[in-house]
Amino acid sequence: MLRSVQADIDLAAQLFESLSRATRRGAGIVRDSYGAGEQAAHDIVRAAAERLGLEIAVDAIGNLMMTLPGRDRAARRLLMGSHLDSVPQGGNYDGAAGVVAGLSVLSGLHAAGFEPPFDITVMAIRAEESAWFDVPYLGSAGAFGLLDPACLSVQRSDNGKSLESTLAQAGFDPGAIRERRRLLDPKSIRAYLELHIEQGPTLVERGLPAAGVSGIRGCLRFRQARCLGEYAHSGAVERAYRHDAVAATVAFLHHMEAVWLREEAAGADLVLTSGELGTDPALHGPSKIAGETRFVLDIRSLSDATMRTVAEEARAAAADVAARYRVRMDLGATSYSVPAAMDERLRAGIRTLLERPFEMASGAGHDAAIFAKLGIPTGMIFVRNEHGSHNPAESMALEDFAEGARVLGALAANFPL
Amino acid sequence: MLRSVQADIDLAAQLFESLSRATRRGAGIVRDSYGAGEQAAHDIVRAAAERLGLEIAVDAIGNLMMTLPGRDRAARRLLMGSHLDSVPQGGNYDGAAGVVAGLSVLSGLHAAGFEPPFDITVMAIRAEESAWFDVPYLGSAGAFGLLDPACLSVQRSDNGKSLESTLAQAGFDPGAIRERRRLLDPKSIRAYLELHIEQGPTLVERGLPAAGVSGIRGCLRFRQARCLGEYAHSGAVERAYRHDAVAATVAFLHHMEAVWLREEAAGADLVLTSGELGTDPALHGPSKIAGETRFVLDIRSLSDATMRTVAEEARAAAADVAARYRVRMDLGATSYSVPAAMDERLRAGIRTLLERPFEMASGAGHDAAIFAKLGIPTGMIFVRNEHGSHNPAESMALEDFAEGARVLGALAANFPL
Repeated sequence: MLRSVQADIDLAAQLFESLSRATRRGAGIVRDSYGAGEQAAHDIVRAAAERLGLEIAVDAIGNLMMTLPGRDRAARRLLMGSHLDSVPQGGNYDGAAGVVAGLSVLSGLHAAGFEPPFDITVMAIRAEESAWFDVPYLGSAGAFGLLDPACLSVQRSDNGKSLESTLAQAGFDPGAIRERRRLLDPKSIRAYLELHIEQGPTLVERGLPAAGVSGIRGCLRFRQARCLGEYAHSGAVERAYRHDAVAATVAFLHHMEAVWLREEAAGADLVLTSGELGTDPALHGPSKIAGETRFVLDIRSLSDATMRTVAEEARAAAADVAARYRVRMDLGATSYSVPAAMDERLRAGIRTLLERPFEMASGAGHDAAIFAKLGIPTGMIFVRNEHGSHNPAESMALEDFAEGARVLGALAANFPL
Repeated sequence: MLRSVQADIDLAAQLFESLSRATRRGAGIVRDSYGAGEQAAHDIVRAAAERLGLEIAVDAIGNLMMTLPGRDRAARRLLMGSHLDSVPQGGNYDGAAGVVAGLSVLSGLHAAGFEPPFDITVMAIRAEESAWFDVPYLGSAGAFGLLDPACLSVQRSDNGKSLESTLAQAGFDPGAIRERRRLLDPKSIRAYLELHIEQGPTLVERGLPAAGVSGIRGCLRFRQARCLGEYAHSGAVERAYRHDAVAATVAFLHHMEAVWLREEAAGADLVLTSGELGTDPALHGPSKIAGETRFVLDIRSLSDATMRTVAEEARAAAADVAARYRVRMDLGATSYSVPAAMDERLRAGIRTLLERPFEMASGAGHDAAIFAKLGIPTGMIFVRNEHGSHNPAESMALEDFAEGARVLGALAANFPL
């Protein structure tokens, strides 16, 4: 029989309110990585943890660890967490919901007089949003000593200050990154659990408050694809003599949509997007055939094989289209992040605990991916959220959050199920 | 039996050389409408006409008329001409070739001691390129009193000066446009003949020096079409929930290409182009679904009915795509120019005179369209030109020009055939 735990939803409501008040700038939320906004959020969360009597620690790069001590302090601990930074003009819930959920659970466990068999730590992770420093998973990857020290010279997108000087100015130690110091030992972690708002409309559309996450999609991206044709007069060149970059790009993207439909019909997990596309404003014209387009092709899947298959199809389609439209298609270099599988036992546990079991892929990346890739059993819970994330209109109902926190708490109190 | 006339190709070579020397600015040619470049070209051509002993007249808006007097001065005259302005960084032949050809023919007729039965006038037309003043066919439409007087406030694209002040400063009379004065009586014109370089690759591809023109394509253009979807995370939104503006635009343009292929197979004259297309650089992103695209759809045909059919199909396709992709497609307003038919007898005459008969549509507009629309019998001759027009690489061989000028001269000397 499972031990039941009542997550502290009043505390959560207070924290969300405080976070919003302290970090709202105009319409949106601004919790800039290693800046005043993120720090304000850390201060609020830390103060709450101190009031709960949790043990507090801050690592060399600013990750905040808030621990409910277990009976065996030497045993591997259970980690719950997420990040506290936001994109510029973001919403109140992306990231913060996971940290607040962890504290609500610890508050509930504490109130119930529960002494866990091992430490349970809520980790408020730094700098997950690459909007400020273009370094993937800065805080969590940095905690494990996984960052390339070259990243210290990356500049913050808004003020141009290097990560190194920003860290030093915020009172942290760039040396930890320079020396690839491991601040957190993967072997010391029993499991990592992250609650996060959903970033698409799936739960809204399906009318479900929360879901388990099957995995985090990898991303294979052609970031700087180009099609090179020849500018010419739109009226004066017959079809057979054109080198029309727009027509070729349309044919290419249309083919890729057909690939998606085929993979979808075959049951593969896949999303395919060209979110940037354009002719050259300096050279195009309403009565010209376009001589160039630039575009992005973003391929995401839970399956590495699916992504590689689709990328191969893209290369073949580009060659075919180039020949048929007498243009050059240059898909350019790819960037790549591997899919991260969630732990099967944790997935099963979350499915069991949810009032209305449902599981879905995470299309966006999360700190959970770093833990999973290190072999740490990792689980994620999504909470329904309207209007997507990364914008001021993020909207999560507290009762939906409560369902997610309930599942998180039950996992923590009964681990392993 | 046709009277043969030897166009003066030496004169043409001198004029092309003088024009290039006087109006080359860096890599390209700049003969700015009503500016120093166009005026330099007029001065060169006028001096040559004076040397030939032609009658010179300049109308109130600067069109230059160079006349070989006929036996019957009261009879309707034959007009040959084209424009002397160029686009910024254009080539040496677009426009100028037609004026130079007219003078070569008059020089040849003069040298042969030919006294025509009616006046033959070469008209060097002002300001055909809308790159400077965005007024279609400024010089020729103005000569016929067809311009909307509101155009006097249109500003030159580079220096912002109004057409009115520019005309006055160049010594011409804006009152002619303000009062819609007719400077040239359509009834006084027997026919209008225009030689022009080809603006596409057709004659290059077919290995022909010159061709007759069947007609000037009209243009029905959706200049400001938009597709409005919803920005969202590229990884986090399944296909069924997307409002992807790029995917919808690709589907729309792909459908329109199918329409083109169908019309082409049915023998219709049609070219279809989207030469401007783009997501919004301020809002798009590599990991976003695009919430908006803007694009142009340019439909050109010799047949008004074909253009209207294709535009109707575009509207139907936009509605269908909008429903299927859950976006809004707003094709916006259309701009429209009717196709201009070339005179059947002149077409037949040109076909007969060409060494290797070939006829093709003109995709670009020409002053000839103004004359044709007024019911003046109008004929056009295209001369092979490499690399398209409106760029410094325009390249017309003098022997190809000679073939076009030979046909033009034979038409003039034997009119009506």
